[in-house]
Amino acid sequence: MKLSRRDFFGAAGVGAAGVVALGAGGVAAGRAAAADDPAAAGGAGGVVPFHGDHQAGIVTPAQDRLHFVAFDVTTTDRSALVRMLQAWTEAARRMTRGEDAGPIGAVAGDEYAPPDDTGEALGLPPAGLTITIGFGPTLFRTADGVDRFGLADRQPAELVELPAFAGEELRPEISGGDICVQACADDPQVAVHAVRNLARIGQGVVGVCWSQLGFGRTSSTTSDQATPRNLFGFKDGTANLKSDQPQALDRFVWVSGTGTWMDGGSYLVSRRIRMLVEVWDRQNLRDQQDTVGRTKGSGAPIGRTGEFDPVDPATLPATSHVALAHPSSSGTAILRRGYSFVDGSDGLGRLDAGLFFLCYQSDPSTGFVQVQRNLRTDKMNEYVKHTSSGVFACPPGLTGDDDWWGSGLFA
Amino acid sequence: MKLSRRDFFGAAGVGAAGVVALGAGGVAAGRAAAADDPAAAGGAGGVVPFHGDHQAGIVTPAQDRLHFVAFDVTTTDRSALVRMLQAWTEAARRMTRGEDAGPIGAVAGDEYAPPDDTGEALGLPPAGLTITIGFGPTLFRTADGVDRFGLADRQPAELVELPAFAGEELRPEISGGDICVQACADDPQVAVHAVRNLARIGQGVVGVCWSQLGFGRTSSTTSDQATPRNLFGFKDGTANLKSDQPQALDRFVWVSGTGTWMDGGSYLVSRRIRMLVEVWDRQNLRDQQDTVGRTKGSGAPIGRTGEFDPVDPATLPATSHVALAHPSSSGTAILRRGYSFVDGSDGLGRLDAGLFFLCYQSDPSTGFVQVQRNLRTDKMNEYVKHTSSGVFACPPGLTGDDDWWGSGLFA
Repeated sequence: MKLSRRDFFGAAGVGAAGVVALGAGGVAAGRAAAADDPAAAGGAGGVVPFHGDHQAGIVTPAQDRLHFVAFDVTTTDRSALVRMLQAWTEAARRMTRGEDAGPIGAVAGDEYAPPDDTGEALGLPPAGLTITIGFGPTLFRTADGVDRFGLADRQPAELVELPAFAGEELRPEISGGDICVQACADDPQVAVHAVRNLARIGQGVVGVCWSQLGFGRTSSTTSDQATPRNLFGFKDGTANLKSDQPQALDRFVWVSGTGTWMDGGSYLVSRRIRMLVEVWDRQNLRDQQDTVGRTKGSGAPIGRTGEFDPVDPATLPATSHVALAHPSSSGTAILRRGYSFVDGSDGLGRLDAGLFFLCYQSDPSTGFVQVQRNLRTDKMNEYVKHTSSGVFACPPGLTGDDDWWGSGLFA
Repeated sequence: MKLSRRDFFGAAGVGAAGVVALGAGGVAAGRAAAADDPAAAGGAGGVVPFHGDHQAGIVTPAQDRLHFVAFDVTTTDRSALVRMLQAWTEAARRMTRGEDAGPIGAVAGDEYAPPDDTGEALGLPPAGLTITIGFGPTLFRTADGVDRFGLADRQPAELVELPAFAGEELRPEISGGDICVQACADDPQVAVHAVRNLARIGQGVVGVCWSQLGFGRTSSTTSDQATPRNLFGFKDGTANLKSDQPQALDRFVWVSGTGTWMDGGSYLVSRRIRMLVEVWDRQNLRDQQDTVGRTKGSGAPIGRTGEFDPVDPATLPATSHVALAHPSSSGTAILRRGYSFVDGSDGLGRLDAGLFFLCYQSDPSTGFVQVQRNLRTDKMNEYVKHTSSGVFACPPGLTGDDDWWGSGLFA
């Protein structure tokens, strides 16, 4: 008989010595106890509700750390895929509450089963974990047009491969994917634990296609979050859409009125943007500021004094990033949710560093694609290279404990 | 004329709007102000002294995040190398205080110079940053025996390439290096900022050979730190050497009595250990515990109840990791300071995850090498692959503001 983590660790007679954030009840109290602790639940330790009209992890206040993963489905069995999505949902529901993915072990004879949780998050708080799922175009139809899972007629018109953009250097082995999972948390070990356990549960049904860690958020999604800095050293995302702009979110982020399984959902575009930081670092301050269109220290638009002073593209260098990307210039808006990364070095004496750009929109063609096309003459293109790309349909939120990821898609 | 960050941002007339942790004095107050803030200085925000008998970052309470980098020296000019080390020291002294690496910009005409700090840590607290330097064998003498910088007769006898170990699969492109820098902090952006600015300062003298981020510490170095869990889900480093064991540190960690520039220093061994987590996750709980030699929940030695109960290797499975690695079995001890990593995927459907193992010892041959040889029959070898290796001589601490990294070596 399998027992819950509480029962198991209680049965094992474990004391509290050396254990993080545990009460007298033993290790069993671990993550769940932390979730109930007001101190832990405040700020970086809290629980973000898993159910709701929309998936968490989109307008949720951007957590500090990211683990993003794209999976390829390796089975041809639709029912196995459905069962996995149901198991994933239950594990995600538990982990976002600060619990383990499943019972970590069992008493007596059942120690001969693999644990249903990998254990590295034992003792860690919920850390604001959100787990957001999306489905890529290849889940619906292969590049050859094969309807793999009887989903071809469920593919939204908006969910198509992105067009090619000038200057991109995409690496196919870290692009695309049938299913993506975005795990955000304020503790990276909690985000890694979530992805790793979903991968574990998915063994035999999915395999990891590619995966990206982000160590620092580069956008705010709520007005009370301070604007972070990206690896160019500039504040990033000052004019980002925010959670307290419901009309703008309804217009630019949430899908609505389609009468399909995507109503209440959003489309995610991922771009791994290598930043040539060594080249950037040799540019003088004026050139850097003219490239961005903002002042490095304050983040104010050039010629203004405050970060949130209104942007008038006509007063900025015409090829500056802000002049071209700003909604008043591109004619649209997207919700950005990117993270900085450093993935070792590039073999040429330089850090392989950059921005893992994530954005949400109600339609990629009038969101990311429209913005990116407007950046054709962006001076910043000299310093960046897009090396990975993905587009995913993120369904609406779950209604409750009986709902599961894909319930609308597979209905 | 270049000005300090305080002057520059003051002159630029920047207000406090939207700026993290800044006082009325403007952005200039940024990181330094945070350092003076008791709230920020407590716990994760504090300043670790840069000067002392030993380098910080060895027995310093292990911070949560790591950026490790190995550089190759690309110049043949000894004096250029010395000047760079002096500039590095000054920048490290500033950054560990929570300041920028140098003035980030200047007024008037000098905005045509590149900033002396890259800017991404503006507004962030000191975050307990430590920057620890080490020199590899190749700095003293190339593989062909060439004395590159007149240092050949300064090479310590203890600083030689590690012997080969059974089963290792080292990748030369991420092994070795002339100089290493270990940056540890409780905010990953602060650690990345430190490494990135040293790389910037070193342009033309050094190039990044390889680099590794670690998202979570896997060892404690002080008795009041809770033992963290590695990606096998087990507590790691329970029996690690600790900062409050001065006699053990003097015996096993610090170099002494050699009458050389290394007295007060320590030798660092780095090993990137890929963990085959997908294989591990399929093993049953009993097998996992027998492999480690400890109970997964509590961390207690098998057959005992408390994490810190004494280990008797004779009572553990003979091929368990703890039975073979424990000081009572290996006859020696090392100070571990490792970090978990996930570097994307391996192209075979699996996460490229593991442990970036760092350890300090007074002599690698009686430290890491002795321990690792004793692990020849370690059952854990089935689940790990060593893919990177490095050995570095870390000099003693700096005596004060006039001292610099390499002052003893280059004397």
